[in-house]
Amino acid sequence: MERALELALQGAGYTSPNPLVGAVIVKNGRIIGEGYHEMYGGPHAEINAFLHATEDVKGATMYVTLEPCSHYGKTPPCARAIVDKGISKVVVAMIDPNPLVAGKGIEILKSNGIEVVTGLLEDKAKKLNEIFIKYITTGLPFCILKTAMTLDGKIAAYTGDSKWITNEYSREYVHELRHRVSGIMVGIGTVLADDPSLTTRRGDRQGKDPVRIIVDSRARIPLDAKVLHVSSKARTILATTSLADGNKLSTLEKMGVEVIMTPCQDNQVDLPYLMKALGERKIDSVLLEGGSTLNYAALEAGIVDKIVAFIAPKILGGDRAKTPVGGKGKASVADSLLLRDIAICRFQDDIMIEAYFDA
Amino acid sequence: MERALELALQGAGYTSPNPLVGAVIVKNGRIIGEGYHEMYGGPHAEINAFLHATEDVKGATMYVTLEPCSHYGKTPPCARAIVDKGISKVVVAMIDPNPLVAGKGIEILKSNGIEVVTGLLEDKAKKLNEIFIKYITTGLPFCILKTAMTLDGKIAAYTGDSKWITNEYSREYVHELRHRVSGIMVGIGTVLADDPSLTTRRGDRQGKDPVRIIVDSRARIPLDAKVLHVSSKARTILATTSLADGNKLSTLEKMGVEVIMTPCQDNQVDLPYLMKALGERKIDSVLLEGGSTLNYAALEAGIVDKIVAFIAPKILGGDRAKTPVGGKGKASVADSLLLRDIAICRFQDDIMIEAYFDA
Repeated sequence: MERALELALQGAGYTSPNPLVGAVIVKNGRIIGEGYHEMYGGPHAEINAFLHATEDVKGATMYVTLEPCSHYGKTPPCARAIVDKGISKVVVAMIDPNPLVAGKGIEILKSNGIEVVTGLLEDKAKKLNEIFIKYITTGLPFCILKTAMTLDGKIAAYTGDSKWITNEYSREYVHELRHRVSGIMVGIGTVLADDPSLTTRRGDRQGKDPVRIIVDSRARIPLDAKVLHVSSKARTILATTSLADGNKLSTLEKMGVEVIMTPCQDNQVDLPYLMKALGERKIDSVLLEGGSTLNYAALEAGIVDKIVAFIAPKILGGDRAKTPVGGKGKASVADSLLLRDIAICRFQDDIMIEAYFDA
Repeated sequence: MERALELALQGAGYTSPNPLVGAVIVKNGRIIGEGYHEMYGGPHAEINAFLHATEDVKGATMYVTLEPCSHYGKTPPCARAIVDKGISKVVVAMIDPNPLVAGKGIEILKSNGIEVVTGLLEDKAKKLNEIFIKYITTGLPFCILKTAMTLDGKIAAYTGDSKWITNEYSREYVHELRHRVSGIMVGIGTVLADDPSLTTRRGDRQGKDPVRIIVDSRARIPLDAKVLHVSSKARTILATTSLADGNKLSTLEKMGVEVIMTPCQDNQVDLPYLMKALGERKIDSVLLEGGSTLNYAALEAGIVDKIVAFIAPKILGGDRAKTPVGGKGKASVADSLLLRDIAICRFQDDIMIEAYFDA
């Protein structure tokens, strides 16, 4: 199953809004076939494992990270193929949270005399598909807040200079994250301050650009902002409100920008509304790389699922230097937002902390 | 040697300004004696190991974390005792940085035909005695900056509320740190905001209170501040300048407070001068538990050797909430103070990062 999870991860960035799935076929103690869901619209992991099998799979055991599907989607149901191939035992890490499947795949297997075991490495499988689980059950994108600060809590010097807080290994990992998600979101403040491209640079490897989402209630974005002119297959979305100038929005639309008009919430973009609109556009995940203001608004709106916080071993100082989360803030420590399932990882001397917000 | 280092650590908090030393005597592959320097003025580790030996030490090997001393201080030289006892081999983790010893102990051993090996677990031994090394070679206290912040870099909510950022395990470790150092230093801002006692609370175990040092350029400390009235053997020092009112200082002195008058540096206490004055008072180590302002001043003055930063998995938010290091701050990320030898440790969900400033 470890191997099946490894295989599944290879599809990261290409399967959206489908899950990441890996499958391994074992016979007489040896692996005789491996496969994973490589890209959206392509064959599922189970089918790829059959295609790559080096000998007859009749009587073999299949390890698969997600319950085999039971419905006709882009491809015929895998549960049926498993029965037809004569597999005698299937080990499943997790039940499919997709309401169209949810146990039905396993039923097909069982009713055809196949032995089924579920729950092996279930936690790992759930973490691997945290995006899919949220999206398929709620229709809302899984939102990851990414921050990078010094050991004294600054995301930039008091002058605004922020190049670079983290080292090259951390920044490379951020590009890996961008590759894995469907959308990347920043506020107009970040566009005005840093003029970022918001594309994925992944060294030698090919990277997939996420959709760029700019939160800009008054459409203040300069028409020459880099984000509007990058050469990329991925589109740019401007999330705005009725406070924006209509002519400016028309110009932006003519430039190919998709405008999402949200209700006006305290002169700001209505973020829960925006998340719903993004989900409807098949954006299953958003990497929020906001400044202090947007990050605070997103947290207050309750749209953030996970935080990925980089901490660099340096001290900047400065009463006026920005921190990862600004806004008004909570009045007491007892009111702070709590995180759970804390994991720590190092990129050389940088430290990365991953954690989840309570639902 | 691992065991000798473990033993040495048991003296932490009691040997100042002496080093932490452990010694283990091995004969025929068995430990036949163990000892450590238990308290200032008491027998050295080697002598304690002899006292606790369960059989004749003639011909045995001694593992000792620091070069045996060669001079008459509070006790006779250990190198001489080792020769007299007939030890045949001595393994030393590190040479004594004390200019009064520095190789002379090893010379005595060698010139008496004892085999000497040095450098075993030297890095661990140096870390164990980082306070002693700094103090014996410079006469200045080793200064540890301790901070505690949320994952978004706040040491308090915008209202000033700071109880509690970290969990009970982290706070317990801070009391262990207080026990190990000679002095604890805060700014008048912290006294006015939190009115702390600055004593050591160590659960069941006995704790040693460090000297309390208040940095207060204008002697604004209220006469009823807790720190002036705690029942403790350790004294309180007020570091101030000519900006302070003379009558107030006299009153404080009558209350038993020791006043250190430093030059006035931009209306602030001259921190390098203060460190020298503390060193002269045999304070070999200072735990700086300052607020943003004092922390920035201390870092700018270059008096800080090490940082112990706690990070709690919670988000407070707030543009006006305080961060660990305030002041003006560095103008660019390239100017930030860099840290090295980063170590990470967890207290349940809290994360502690230890690191060193470049000398």
